[in-house]
Amino acid sequence: MDQHDTLPSVQDVAIIVGGGPGISSSCARLFAENGMRVGIAARNPDKSVLQNLEKTHGVRRYACDATEPAAVELLFQNVVRDLGAPTLVVHNIDGRVPGIFRMGITEADPSMVLDTLRNSAFSAYLVGQHAARLMRENKPSPGGTKGTIIFTNASAALKGFPMSAAFAMACHAKSGLAQSMARELMPEGIHVANVPIDAAIGWTQEDGTRAHRLAGTTVDDNMADPDCIAETYLHLHRQHRSTWAFEVVLRPWVEKW
Amino acid sequence: MDQHDTLPSVQDVAIIVGGGPGISSSCARLFAENGMRVGIAARNPDKSVLQNLEKTHGVRRYACDATEPAAVELLFQNVVRDLGAPTLVVHNIDGRVPGIFRMGITEADPSMVLDTLRNSAFSAYLVGQHAARLMRENKPSPGGTKGTIIFTNASAALKGFPMSAAFAMACHAKSGLAQSMARELMPEGIHVANVPIDAAIGWTQEDGTRAHRLAGTTVDDNMADPDCIAETYLHLHRQHRSTWAFEVVLRPWVEKW
Amino acid sequence: MDQHDTLPSVQDVAIIVGGGPGISSSCARLFAENGMRVGIAARNPDKSVLQNLEKTHGVRRYACDATEPAAVELLFQNVVRDLGAPTLVVHNIDGRVPGIFRMGITEADPSMVLDTLRNSAFSAYLVGQHAARLMRENKPSPGGTKGTIIFTNASAALKGFPMSAAFAMACHAKSGLAQSMARELMPEGIHVANVPIDAAIGWTQEDGTRAHRLAGTTVDDNMADPDCIAETYLHLHRQHRSTWAFEVVLRPWVEKW
Amino acid sequence: MDQHDTLPSVQDVAIIVGGGPGISSSCARLFAENGMRVGIAARNPDKSVLQNLEKTHGVRRYACDATEPAAVELLFQNVVRDLGAPTLVVHNIDGRVPGIFRMGITEADPSMVLDTLRNSAFSAYLVGQHAARLMRENKPSPGGTKGTIIFTNASAALKGFPMSAAFAMACHAKSGLAQSMARELMPEGIHVANVPIDAAIGWTQEDGTRAHRLAGTTVDDNMADPDCIAETYLHLHRQHRSTWAFEVVLRPWVEKW
Repeated sequence: MDQHDTLPSVQDVAIIVGGGPGISSSCARLFAENGMRVGIAARNPDKSVLQNLEKTHGVRRYACDATEPAAVELLFQNVVRDLGAPTLVVHNIDGRVPGIFRMGITEADPSMVLDTLRNSAFSAYLVGQHAARLMRENKPSPGGTKGTIIFTNASAALKGFPMSAAFAMACHAKSGLAQSMARELMPEGIHVANVPIDAAIGWTQEDGTRAHRLAGTTVDDNMADPDCIAETYLHLHRQHRSTWAFEVVLRPWVEKW
Repeated sequence: MDQHDTLPSVQDVAIIVGGGPGISSSCARLFAENGMRVGIAARNPDKSVLQNLEKTHGVRRYACDATEPAAVELLFQNVVRDLGAPTLVVHNIDGRVPGIFRMGITEADPSMVLDTLRNSAFSAYLVGQHAARLMRENKPSPGGTKGTIIFTNASAALKGFPMSAAFAMACHAKSGLAQSMARELMPEGIHVANVPIDAAIGWTQEDGTRAHRLAGTTVDDNMADPDCIAETYLHLHRQHRSTWAFEVVLRPWVEKW
Repeated sequence: MDQHDTLPSVQDVAIIVGGGPGISSSCARLFAENGMRVGIAARNPDKSVLQNLEKTHGVRRYACDATEPAAVELLFQNVVRDLGAPTLVVHNIDGRVPGIFRMGITEADPSMVLDTLRNSAFSAYLVGQHAARLMRENKPSPGGTKGTIIFTNASAALKGFPMSAAFAMACHAKSGLAQSMARELMPEGIHVANVPIDAAIGWTQEDGTRAHRLAGTTVDDNMADPDCIAETYLHLHRQHRSTWAFEVVLRPWVEKW
Repeated sequence: MDQHDTLPSVQDVAIIVGGGPGISSSCARLFAENGMRVGIAARNPDKSVLQNLEKTHGVRRYACDATEPAAVELLFQNVVRDLGAPTLVVHNIDGRVPGIFRMGITEADPSMVLDTLRNSAFSAYLVGQHAARLMRENKPSPGGTKGTIIFTNASAALKGFPMSAAFAMACHAKSGLAQSMARELMPEGIHVANVPIDAAIGWTQEDGTRAHRLAGTTVDDNMADPDCIAETYLHLHRQHRSTWAFEVVLRPWVEKW
């Protein structure tokens, strides 16, 4: 008897907020291959990488500025209309504004700091809030889960690095949000998880080449493979509610920590 | 040879941002009694408790909305003009907007969440940024310290409680800021500390009565005494740079944790 | 492309140290069902639950007092001889001596404390040391893993509870061991994981009835289901080395934390 | 009103277990200078540095192998007889056996691992147990404290470094002990603190020269000055029970963390 006994009797619907060639694309592919209806939201949903996902995996694309309350509300309305009530929501927005990386505490313009907070932590709140509202009404899966909310996070959530105050603030805030939501929603059957990726992500290229997935190809596997991250997200979604993980830090074998 | 050998040869100037009857008043009194010039900033600096501090301890009062970059810049200009360059800066703003406490994730209006982030974490960034700029130019104290920046924080910085997502976000963000600043500024001789108070604060009343400070008076010492918190802040400021503490959690003897 | 692409081309051999009706039995079954050769070691390998595992899943049983260096050395020699070099080692010993639970700091006899340290942390060291020696010589799996070492741990590893000093010491020590081994061995291709279970374990009964695995059976799923724990262990073993998790805390949906 | 209002009306008696030229000597001097009766215990109490403490500060010396239950019991009996019931107990034993530092997981002889656990964590248990027994009978100080128990710890308590498994185990175990004791004893008025020193200690030399204490002498203040550590220990002992700190990590301004 293995985990596949817990495959959904209700239709699994996944929505990924924040879309590009990395984690979001890997998630979209893996979720679709496992029978879910999948949507992906991005400021610009017409990027070729997202168009390809639609073609190859039937992924629905949505335009959404996730820092705007009304836009996030509309997104979830459209997802429900098009795909059904979501059972798996991934917030996958990094949120750093251009130039903020490696900028000292006395150099950054305050507006960049506020924008980073809005892009990352505030949008996570908005997405989490709507996900929670809808999931409360879901029927539990065979594993007892009404829905799973996953926040992609970064090592800056675990440690505030120098020259990186705004990003440390945003990532820590996202962790605080995830923790509060987990303690509030898990007893209602909603699984909330925080997944700091302690690594650079090894981008999967549009031509489909993948540098470090196969045996013997050790090149670049010092970077996290987004396909492997997606597998852990799927595992989290499938965990029985008797044994949920809240926080999983993923890092490559050679990473210093 | 005790810690008083390290008393400043340079004039100690303290500015406390966020002023009321609790930690800020206790700090203002203790710092003044130990020879510092002290300023206190608040949205409304005309509260009677602050007026009393001016009368009894010569504390300078400043009006400041610490969520506004220009207002914080002006505050520090005025402090330098009136008192000299600060050597000790305390950010003491809680930042919760009315109604946000004990409000579920799906109930809070997004604007309340953003306001909480601005009041608490963003104002901490602004205050920390200006403090760092000025302290870099200070001469070191006998203990090797160019200045001390202390962030008053809450147990929500350590643990995201349910029904409290916005506050968890803000407190976590403040911790992330403090950590990043500590790693960036400590090697420059600026001591940055994060002090989560894991307790309700036992308010000192305006008539001067203090419930739980003296021997035998055990009433209410399940709440943190702000006078005692101020003593730890002073200790942090006086620590020699060979042995700085970054994070000190203060909690009453009977607190569950 | 899903995780099954990374199924081993080399023979997977699992050895579980510490055997009873809970996590160890669930792991033994799941690992055997996924094509591994499986051994289980216990002080008394003749318990009926272990004899049943031999019958139903071909699990090899070993007698071993894991607090004795020579016994652990012999165990691994025998495993290599019988099953091959291990690729997955689970240390699953709790180690509390009778009576130590809920015993105050001034009540416990020191010998009970030392025994708890030996049973839990010291035996984990011995098992981890031999596992590391052997795994260094393994060929990497398609996912780049020479072997996986998993330490079952408890919430006492995360938080030292009152009336429980000896167990807090042992569980913390096991975490320290796991961390040190992870930092040392992960760059050699050996995946080390620490899995604190923040829950009582819902014992699977010998007649095969399982209280809380199936849909609609909500009875007792406030306790961790060992079958579900085993699934997370298998997921950890299968993670690609570009994205390893070190620590995964598993807790039921209704657990307070 | 400053912290000196809380100076003891009862006689303060300090006993430091683990004695040498560093933290223990600095504590003994500072505690004696602040009016305490002070004892120091070591395997060899006849070291010249300890004999000097007796001459200059009236410190009482005790021979004690703190890994032996009977020896620790006798030590506390003798301290009570000679100095009175202790109000401040410092466990200051590092416990690493020769050769264990920078030794890989597969190299260390198991007996070295067990000795490190006994020297550090188990002796801390014994000392903590006797301290707790005696302190329960003390009258509270004006600050409400029946006694303070401080465990000197190391950065290995916070992070398990590679090539250092045994020390990581021992330091983590000591943290687990301290946490459990704090949660158990703080509500009884006994302050328990864990103080990881994240640095090399700058040894104070026997001729009295101190490299980095005075202004302008920046040589070597990348190492922790034990005199400054002692000041934080004294501050912890004097904290009012409404605002106790449990864990204080001390590190030099230039330390990476």
